[in-house]
Amino acid sequence: MASYEDVLSLSVRRGFIWPAVDLYGGLAGFYDYGHNGILLRRHWEDLWIESFLGLSDNYHLIDTTTILPEAALKASGHVDHFTDILVTCTRCGESYRGDQLLEASTHEEQEGLTTQEVDAQIQELKIRCPNCKGVLGPSREFNMMFPVAIGPTGKDRAYLRPETAQGVFLNFKREFEALRRKLPMGLAIVGRAYRNEISPRQGAYRMREFLQAELQIFFDPATFADALPFDAIASVPVRVAWAAEKNGPGAHEIPAKDLVNRGLPSWYVWHLVQVQRFYLDALRIPRDAFRLAELDEKERAFYNQIHFDIQVRQESLGGFKEVGGVHYRTDHDLKGHEAGSHTKQSVTVGATKLVPHVLELSFGVDRNVWALLDLSYAKGDRIAPVPVAVFPLVNKDGIPERAEALWAAVRKRIAAFYDDSGSIGRRYARIDEIGTPFSVTVDHETLEGKGVTVRERDSQKQFRVSEGELADTIERLLSGEATFPA
Amino acid sequence: MASYEDVLSLSVRRGFIWPAVDLYGGLAGFYDYGHNGILLRRHWEDLWIESFLGLSDNYHLIDTTTILPEAALKASGHVDHFTDILVTCTRCGESYRGDQLLEASTHEEQEGLTTQEVDAQIQELKIRCPNCKGVLGPSREFNMMFPVAIGPTGKDRAYLRPETAQGVFLNFKREFEALRRKLPMGLAIVGRAYRNEISPRQGAYRMREFLQAELQIFFDPATFADALPFDAIASVPVRVAWAAEKNGPGAHEIPAKDLVNRGLPSWYVWHLVQVQRFYLDALRIPRDAFRLAELDEKERAFYNQIHFDIQVRQESLGGFKEVGGVHYRTDHDLKGHEAGSHTKQSVTVGATKLVPHVLELSFGVDRNVWALLDLSYAKGDRIAPVPVAVFPLVNKDGIPERAEALWAAVRKRIAAFYDDSGSIGRRYARIDEIGTPFSVTVDHETLEGKGVTVRERDSQKQFRVSEGELADTIERLLSGEATFPA
Repeated sequence: MASYEDVLSLSVRRGFIWPAVDLYGGLAGFYDYGHNGILLRRHWEDLWIESFLGLSDNYHLIDTTTILPEAALKASGHVDHFTDILVTCTRCGESYRGDQLLEASTHEEQEGLTTQEVDAQIQELKIRCPNCKGVLGPSREFNMMFPVAIGPTGKDRAYLRPETAQGVFLNFKREFEALRRKLPMGLAIVGRAYRNEISPRQGAYRMREFLQAELQIFFDPATFADALPFDAIASVPVRVAWAAEKNGPGAHEIPAKDLVNRGLPSWYVWHLVQVQRFYLDALRIPRDAFRLAELDEKERAFYNQIHFDIQVRQESLGGFKEVGGVHYRTDHDLKGHEAGSHTKQSVTVGATKLVPHVLELSFGVDRNVWALLDLSYAKGDRIAPVPVAVFPLVNKDGIPERAEALWAAVRKRIAAFYDDSGSIGRRYARIDEIGTPFSVTVDHETLEGKGVTVRERDSQKQFRVSEGELADTIERLLSGEATFPA
Repeated sequence: MASYEDVLSLSVRRGFIWPAVDLYGGLAGFYDYGHNGILLRRHWEDLWIESFLGLSDNYHLIDTTTILPEAALKASGHVDHFTDILVTCTRCGESYRGDQLLEASTHEEQEGLTTQEVDAQIQELKIRCPNCKGVLGPSREFNMMFPVAIGPTGKDRAYLRPETAQGVFLNFKREFEALRRKLPMGLAIVGRAYRNEISPRQGAYRMREFLQAELQIFFDPATFADALPFDAIASVPVRVAWAAEKNGPGAHEIPAKDLVNRGLPSWYVWHLVQVQRFYLDALRIPRDAFRLAELDEKERAFYNQIHFDIQVRQESLGGFKEVGGVHYRTDHDLKGHEAGSHTKQSVTVGATKLVPHVLELSFGVDRNVWALLDLSYAKGDRIAPVPVAVFPLVNKDGIPERAEALWAAVRKRIAAFYDDSGSIGRRYARIDEIGTPFSVTVDHETLEGKGVTVRERDSQKQFRVSEGELADTIERLLSGEATFPA
């Protein structure tokens, strides 16, 4: 079993991710990316953009400021509702999250409690300060946003954004005009968000500064389903855990059409299938390590009407853990900004005038990177953060161009690095360090139609294969269907 | 002449960049990127990474937190020295930057003044509040960093980073160990930085939240020059303006070796040439719109020993304006963190033990994007943010693979988009909107060796050219050496 410390140690040694500012004693909840971490993260981001922005030619990346004014976050509900329950020790002053204190005592998940309920349970269970055994003070709501004062007088109150989504909502109307005035329209941001966690003790899983990849799909609920080819995925088995089973280790495999029969909108299920495809086919997560876990009303954020967490099973984190979510936010956000800004957010599409509804595909990028590191930890198995690297043998004679074209083709199916810097020996050493099991070299013989060389890290054996068969061959090797040389 | 408003209006209309949070009345100094702005910015970032990370196989991207603790920014000098002079009106309370008040009155650049000097000049020139004509109060030093309080008690004092560089310095030792213990070693970050500007009235040129692309090169000053092929660039004419001429409109063209003869280190000049190449060859800025402008001691930041600004002439900003800089920071930063953290920053390379020196190549990403928009504004000329787009006619039969390979080859020499989504007509419309003058379509005839179709936006004329001649042809068209059809 890989412990959290095992994975973190591998991560630090190989230059993936490490606690920030260790030179000054560290900063709880903050992590930096080393040179290999950035390669892996950019690879994940590229796949994400290909997979989800590729769903429609009316889906686009944008980027917005990480600092937002109070008025906007008041309208979104974050100023009033984006809180955790804070409990402070009256003796040593240590701070705790109320739900975590109760969970440590009851070994049961606690969600959606009020301060009164937390106080009552602390009394009933006779919970003392875990640090000094002192008496715990009364709990209170603590807003998790970081305030920022703008300008020399600080009179413009603002916050670091708690999610990238709000930047998209604020730009909805402007983009609707600048684009083609059509729905569905998708706007995505890959960018930072900030949450002033009370006590971020779960390491890289719960960060105060983190990266999100979120796609907001604006749609008309009356017609959204019509535009999606649901029939093509109706029989796809979707790995689902229901709300009541979410602490269990398993998942059901339920055909997409049966999820619709159980009452989920077909457009929602269609997107669950796309998310599952991203994890199983693009990222190549083992099937049994992936599931979509339903959240009930008490667990969902206040703005979500349907919510499944995207979960990946990670030994280092003790089981299935959230790496993203599929959130039906309804028209909550645009209506909120309409009221807050006194500016109509409705649009006219054909004969219909409406405030669009929003489906949010939300991913924690750092949590995804951690999941890939966790899954690649088990030595000897075929899961690596990036399973293939493509090299041109030399940087001339059209060989780099051929290698790049091959790389472009391979990485549509398999995570792949491209590296043309330094000697081949150095490049082997570099991917060995990352744990990449297979490398592919393009040389002069490739130009003569004699294929490419595949090298296996562990055995250092090599063999040649045609370019056309390369991706299939690597996939068979990765899945264990074939052994080397294939 | 293109005014600032002309370019901003084009930028908003075409979905490049616009003032943030307009729904709530805006937020001075903050800008958002629309869907075309992100395409352009990512294109710039990709070229930057290729150009500068490609200088050595020991140069790497990393990423670090945007929030840094006070101790680190105290050691770097930012807590004490990263200030502007603030003058506040005693009547209306409006805030001004001291140097800007004086510049508005004297029409001369003001740099490196003390608060006493500003107060004396305000008295002498009888300057009143530009807003209400009230009496201005005494000036004071104002720190430009945004404070952030971490955790529920806020006892961990921190700031939003004022530059990406500090994140690199804090990770120097860790990366030196994780990499190959060699110098020169380069670490780059493309990420956000924040400066609480007193009165950001220069629009998109002076933002409070902005994106930097910075490469820190750690080197041994005794041996750095030996590793660089200076002879190959000794005769290259470098476009330079000396400190005394920096308000003038021109530049000298001085061979690299003559800059060395004037006393600049050859390793410094070698990097000036690389920066110039990036602007003239990769970004295709007109030669006369680019220069490197020397800063004298009074203008340089406190940590720089040699400093040339990278400048691009922009009509919308009234002439040559800074878009980056080449900074010789000496061992100031690592020595500062050594003292601040009580942790040795020296490393041993061969027989030498040293605290490495740092050459910083620093770029304001938003300022570069703005410069590209400014230069592309003049209608009818051949400068466009992205001059070429490559399309597969259909998404099957191996055509996308061929198109992607061609795109990979073209974009090594010319800024190019790739777009495979939607009908060809739609893709034409999309690039027309961005102002891309040429598009290239790969079709079934391409697979038969019959070349590709080039289409000119303005005339809508088309002609075929072989893949091998494509980049040359487009370059001749862009430079005006050839006219369409070429």
